[in-house]
Amino acid sequence: MAQLKEVFMSNNDNVNLKRTFINELSEADEKICLRGWVHKIVDLSHVVFIKLRDKSGVVQLVCQKDQVKDLRLENAIEVIGTKCENKKAPGGIEILVDNIKVVGKNYYDKLPFEVNACKNKATLETQLDHRTISLRRPEIRAIFKVQNEIEVAFREYLKERHFEQIHTAKIIDSSTEGGSEMFTVNYFDKRSFLAQSPQFYKQMMVGAGFERVFEIGHAYRAELHNTWRHLNEYVSLDVEMGFIKDEYELMDLEEGFINYLYKHLKETCKKELQMYKIELPQKINIPRIALDKARQILLEEYNKKSPVGNIDAQGEVLISKYVKEKYDCDFVFLTKYPVSKRPMYAMPDDKDKNLTKSFDLIFDGLEITTGGQRIHDYEMLKENIIKFGLNPEDFDFYLETFKYGMPPHGGFAIGLERITMKILKLSNIRQASLIPRDMKRLTP
Amino acid sequence: MAQLKEVFMSNNDNVNLKRTFINELSEADEKICLRGWVHKIVDLSHVVFIKLRDKSGVVQLVCQKDQVKDLRLENAIEVIGTKCENKKAPGGIEILVDNIKVVGKNYYDKLPFEVNACKNKATLETQLDHRTISLRRPEIRAIFKVQNEIEVAFREYLKERHFEQIHTAKIIDSSTEGGSEMFTVNYFDKRSFLAQSPQFYKQMMVGAGFERVFEIGHAYRAELHNTWRHLNEYVSLDVEMGFIKDEYELMDLEEGFINYLYKHLKETCKKELQMYKIELPQKINIPRIALDKARQILLEEYNKKSPVGNIDAQGEVLISKYVKEKYDCDFVFLTKYPVSKRPMYAMPDDKDKNLTKSFDLIFDGLEITTGGQRIHDYEMLKENIIKFGLNPEDFDFYLETFKYGMPPHGGFAIGLERITMKILKLSNIRQASLIPRDMKRLTP
Repeated sequence: MAQLKEVFMSNNDNVNLKRTFINELSEADEKICLRGWVHKIVDLSHVVFIKLRDKSGVVQLVCQKDQVKDLRLENAIEVIGTKCENKKAPGGIEILVDNIKVVGKNYYDKLPFEVNACKNKATLETQLDHRTISLRRPEIRAIFKVQNEIEVAFREYLKERHFEQIHTAKIIDSSTEGGSEMFTVNYFDKRSFLAQSPQFYKQMMVGAGFERVFEIGHAYRAELHNTWRHLNEYVSLDVEMGFIKDEYELMDLEEGFINYLYKHLKETCKKELQMYKIELPQKINIPRIALDKARQILLEEYNKKSPVGNIDAQGEVLISKYVKEKYDCDFVFLTKYPVSKRPMYAMPDDKDKNLTKSFDLIFDGLEITTGGQRIHDYEMLKENIIKFGLNPEDFDFYLETFKYGMPPHGGFAIGLERITMKILKLSNIRQASLIPRDMKRLTP
Repeated sequence: MAQLKEVFMSNNDNVNLKRTFINELSEADEKICLRGWVHKIVDLSHVVFIKLRDKSGVVQLVCQKDQVKDLRLENAIEVIGTKCENKKAPGGIEILVDNIKVVGKNYYDKLPFEVNACKNKATLETQLDHRTISLRRPEIRAIFKVQNEIEVAFREYLKERHFEQIHTAKIIDSSTEGGSEMFTVNYFDKRSFLAQSPQFYKQMMVGAGFERVFEIGHAYRAELHNTWRHLNEYVSLDVEMGFIKDEYELMDLEEGFINYLYKHLKETCKKELQMYKIELPQKINIPRIALDKARQILLEEYNKKSPVGNIDAQGEVLISKYVKEKYDCDFVFLTKYPVSKRPMYAMPDDKDKNLTKSFDLIFDGLEITTGGQRIHDYEMLKENIIKFGLNPEDFDFYLETFKYGMPPHGGFAIGLERITMKILKLSNIRQASLIPRDMKRLTP
């Protein structure tokens, strides 16, 4: 290694070469500097092909044997070389190497699993135990490229519509919203909680004059579920909008976002969508079905009984199947959930006071959104808090905003990992979280 | 109210008018629909002027007495009217009102403090107790417009340089990074902690192949400080970059960001900067002074003694004063902090092994950044962990990445509230947090 380093350092012409990313190679000069990891080594008789992987892609290096004698898979290296066109090489370009310098050494006997094999043979748990190794696999990294662009699209779409991003506190004083399913925090010897959602704060910021807000932040659920669709810490894409007419305006907003998102992903994640064989539709019109009607459909079409005032996980799958067959849509809004199944701030329906102006969005069998119009009248909200058996004094910090001209408003939240998972048709939500937290996993 | 509502509802021509935001008035049609809050009421003999405030600005409404008889300050209203030019009106435009509809009622006897007075007379504590009322004051909202644009600039600047945004877990298994200054979380009856920073994870993601990452997320410090510059929950703008040459590359990156940010703010926050009488310089060249040299300057110039291997808060103020006078710069990088003052992952200096390749960025007397090059060699890092009296086994989840070709890397973090505060010359960091958390404040 020391020898290589000396060679490189004395090669003064090259030291100041600007680094080229692999996806920029076609526009680069002939003489280039690349950096990345040794993805694959193919040792032929007189020449060695190295597949170099950087954050943007993979390229083939053509090396002499003595240049690579110290190299092993996953070494981090810096390469000086000459760009050549070669129709036989993957991507049509290969690099004739002048120098290779190892900048990140290896200290392993055996990789925990193969990074460069076509098929990923490691179990999900093993992949997550060695998260930083599994992320080196291009198809795993692709998930987070798509996730990133979902967030970009969310931000762009909302900004174009006068929404502003906010950050609100995650350590909160009371467990008023969700009760037992919250994590407790010892806050200077005071018992506090991790927020289940920015619900109260996003409503308060609407009232504070922001009118239209969104937040991208962690939410915490101490749910005793260890399933393919639950995370105990997840990223919530939250929206809240003032001066709305009704909950249908919110559904329009979310439907508009899904269409915007699909267009954006087709432009920015072509390669990644191909890896997962995903073809996104051109235009989506999302059916809106009242919950009661959905329960009836489930019973009539699939002989499926649902729990009172709701549908269960199997019901979500079946109603998606129904909507897919009937309307060729992967999404369905379920509307008009009963008061008993919604929080105290849900706005009652105009016609039937046992129902609320709320909705869920089901995407391919999985709920990815809960939303709705909220109560904006101070007295009505206070009364409702009492009706729910809660103490309005516990909500003083929240209720105050409602005394000073709170406009009609509502919103929704999208689980970032859930929508990522469903777009890429992943089978487990942990695949869509960089560092997932579940009941059993606190590391890495 | 009912009467007004009936009038409005029957006015079918107007019901479907698209809402205009006040800052778009000059391009709007003559007939318009506005929404917002009653900011001010000026009752003259035959006419009443209402200042209407929405998220984008304030405009004057010209009303008949009977149109406004139910209105009070801070009612949320919807207005249909006709746009007129009037050179005497603020902004040169006023609205002749056809209809006003109250969409958000009031339930207060007295506002906790004035929203529309030129001078904000409420104490900061009172303002924070009634956060959603204080945010209605345009100069308070302006803080968060600027904060928003800081985040936008951060994201844009880094994306142009191949950085990717990540989200990492905030609930973590061990208190290894910071020890006692962490909040504990009861995680399914297991003791866990809220992350002080995404330090380990951002390094791991560099190693996982992202190479260049940033994270915008909450960080938690259980510090027993209740001062003008401490928050216990804050937003951290974190950066980590692989394949760097040295820590100066990181300082270049951050200096570049500050210049990019100032340009961006001048373009996007003209009005807000004017409110706070801030003139941002055209170009910033940030001096880089070794800590030892800074300590010497403090002693020689100000007879100020510093604690061993560091400078204190007063020292930060004085070194900023010195740099401002000598170099006309509000910023200064302090470099080469001693090993004893930095974490175990800080890369030792090439020449003096008692020093590290780390730095702080001081902005107008306040540290807003800590950064540096990290150790990337597995054996060296493991040894250093032991040298620091820690157990490498506790760091297995972190160390693993270093076995598989970890490139030279480093990064820094900027406190979002701190940089906001300093740019606007605010006196207390709580002013720059929407929902601040300090030792005594857990509400709202």
